[in-house]
Amino acid sequence: MRTLAVVGGGAIGQGVAWQAAEAGWSVTLFDPAAGSGASWVAGGMLAPLSEGWPGEDRVLEFGAAALARWPEFAARLHAATGVDVMVADQTLTVALDAADAADLRTIADWVGEHGHELELLDRAGVRALEPALARTVRAGLLAAAEPAVDNRRLLRGLHAAGAAAGVRVRPETVADLAALDFDQIVLAAGAASARLLPELPVRPVKGEILRLRHRPGATPVPRRVIRARVHGRPVYLVPRGDGLVVGATQYEAGFDTTVTVGGVRDLIADAETILPGIAEYELSEANSGSRPGTPDNLPLIGRYSDRIVVATGHGRNGMLTTPLTVEAVLGELAGTPLPDARSAAPQRFATPPASLASSTGGIR
Amino acid sequence: MRTLAVVGGGAIGQGVAWQAAEAGWSVTLFDPAAGSGASWVAGGMLAPLSEGWPGEDRVLEFGAAALARWPEFAARLHAATGVDVMVADQTLTVALDAADAADLRTIADWVGEHGHELELLDRAGVRALEPALARTVRAGLLAAAEPAVDNRRLLRGLHAAGAAAGVRVRPETVADLAALDFDQIVLAAGAASARLLPELPVRPVKGEILRLRHRPGATPVPRRVIRARVHGRPVYLVPRGDGLVVGATQYEAGFDTTVTVGGVRDLIADAETILPGIAEYELSEANSGSRPGTPDNLPLIGRYSDRIVVATGHGRNGMLTTPLTVEAVLGELAGTPLPDARSAAPQRFATPPASLASSTGGIR
Repeated sequence: MRTLAVVGGGAIGQGVAWQAAEAGWSVTLFDPAAGSGASWVAGGMLAPLSEGWPGEDRVLEFGAAALARWPEFAARLHAATGVDVMVADQTLTVALDAADAADLRTIADWVGEHGHELELLDRAGVRALEPALARTVRAGLLAAAEPAVDNRRLLRGLHAAGAAAGVRVRPETVADLAALDFDQIVLAAGAASARLLPELPVRPVKGEILRLRHRPGATPVPRRVIRARVHGRPVYLVPRGDGLVVGATQYEAGFDTTVTVGGVRDLIADAETILPGIAEYELSEANSGSRPGTPDNLPLIGRYSDRIVVATGHGRNGMLTTPLTVEAVLGELAGTPLPDARSAAPQRFATPPASLASSTGGIR
Repeated sequence: MRTLAVVGGGAIGQGVAWQAAEAGWSVTLFDPAAGSGASWVAGGMLAPLSEGWPGEDRVLEFGAAALARWPEFAARLHAATGVDVMVADQTLTVALDAADAADLRTIADWVGEHGHELELLDRAGVRALEPALARTVRAGLLAAAEPAVDNRRLLRGLHAAGAAAGVRVRPETVADLAALDFDQIVLAAGAASARLLPELPVRPVKGEILRLRHRPGATPVPRRVIRARVHGRPVYLVPRGDGLVVGATQYEAGFDTTVTVGGVRDLIADAETILPGIAEYELSEANSGSRPGTPDNLPLIGRYSDRIVVATGHGRNGMLTTPLTVEAVLGELAGTPLPDARSAAPQRFATPPASLASSTGGIR
């Protein structure tokens, strides 16, 4: 039985560990606190179509390929563990002013040209779907096929599925990949991946989120994911069983994960602009994580050396990408790279490849 | 040795237990979670003079009598435990508009007539003392003798002092005072006191607070307690070693202690109006407690029956009142009521006394 070390216990690492164990690998997952990083803080939006923008063809294709894999992935996880991770079926992006409304048309047109249907809504159309939204909302864009997942249920499910499949978890920090005595290694340490392979172009992008709990008598929780831009800041409200996740700030702040007064202030203000009733919700949690950002907003998935496969740099889309990334990593481990993941090949930043290769054994 | 049960483990209850044990009582303190209630959430302002207002003579006298006891109380606690509870020496109330500035003059005049000195400051005077305050601050009122205490250090100190003096803590909820087999009982259960003696006119007044932690590079923490009114809402910033407590909302909400989105929003907005730099602070905690309110904003301290002394209803001033309340309760236990606490006698609401007395054995 071939041995595999997975370094990093977020959704990606746990997903890889589970599927590799099911595929016959002897898997050990290393993380001092599995499931406590960016995956724990995530909102769980799966919205590659709503986030489409002219020119970002590769990001759209990659995201759509990931989204297409979610139903089967969720069904397999449910079959293995009984955990149902879906928390919403659709995504509604709303516009507060004429410029935002024009952007929604741009997105609908461009994403439509790429074969994905999005529906433009007027004021009345938005109100019919989500009556609790602010009266200042003037238009909407409905993605009928963009759901959302509960990130914490996902982590719980992946952990249970991995344990049932034989994954061993070692609560340790890995300081040196070379010291791991395994046949193969998957590096899925998120924003911390560059500590182990410094030439990986991945950096922490701080994000703060709030969790709000519905209280009796308060405005009902929207049924769909609600996205908007307020004062130029993106804000989203992702339903949970008992409330909402409100995200997310974005800062280049190193590995700082302090929740700031200003971040909370802005999230509350922006969310309230979209859904005025939330003042009566409970503020049950304010949290922060480090997203693993890359220069082109596509992840880094693929073989790094004979013994190392990387799976990091998922930025704001780690939840969305999990099924595709897991499949791509399993493909690399089996020697059959996945065509859909080609645009995420880590080699794309290696210019010239030799210079990186020389320092550490190489991005091939 | 006579036995004493103290019901309630907030600052008042723990203070009474400590001092009674030192006075020779065999003391048992009952609380399922001592030190976790309103005392844990408190800001720690000791500001009876700054809060003075024409007509509220008894409240001012009572508060001033309490404040006068703090230096010796703090010194005794320090001697017993090494815990130093003081976190600021002075209180500065600031005005943002002409009406607020006029109110400060009213307070200064009226409190001055009662023999307590407060100093009116103009814009430059405020800036000289606390340069980080907003430029919109136009006047100030300095209470040079109003300090603040760290409520959590106080609880820690009182617990240690009580333990050293022989106080036994039983982590139990008391359902019936009559069932307590002790010579004397002190009821100091805060807002919950009316559950045990329903005729006590004490009700929960919900209050939310934030704790902010200073971060490198952010505006320095003010040296004084800063108080203000913003959009008609009172707000205060109480220094702590590493940051600030920002308080406090006020709602009549029963025993609900949910932290609401709207409460946090208002506290941040009001605090930022006074001290603009706090956006860069960490939001380290949002919390809520139930103050024990009374109809006239004076507490209920005194003998209730041959076996029961009450000490509750301290409202927003539990920290301030602790030394005076402890002394008053010890006086009742010794049969020598304290003149300074006469205005807090629980009998003042018993009209006619007989009707209340008949239901439960009486307020004498």
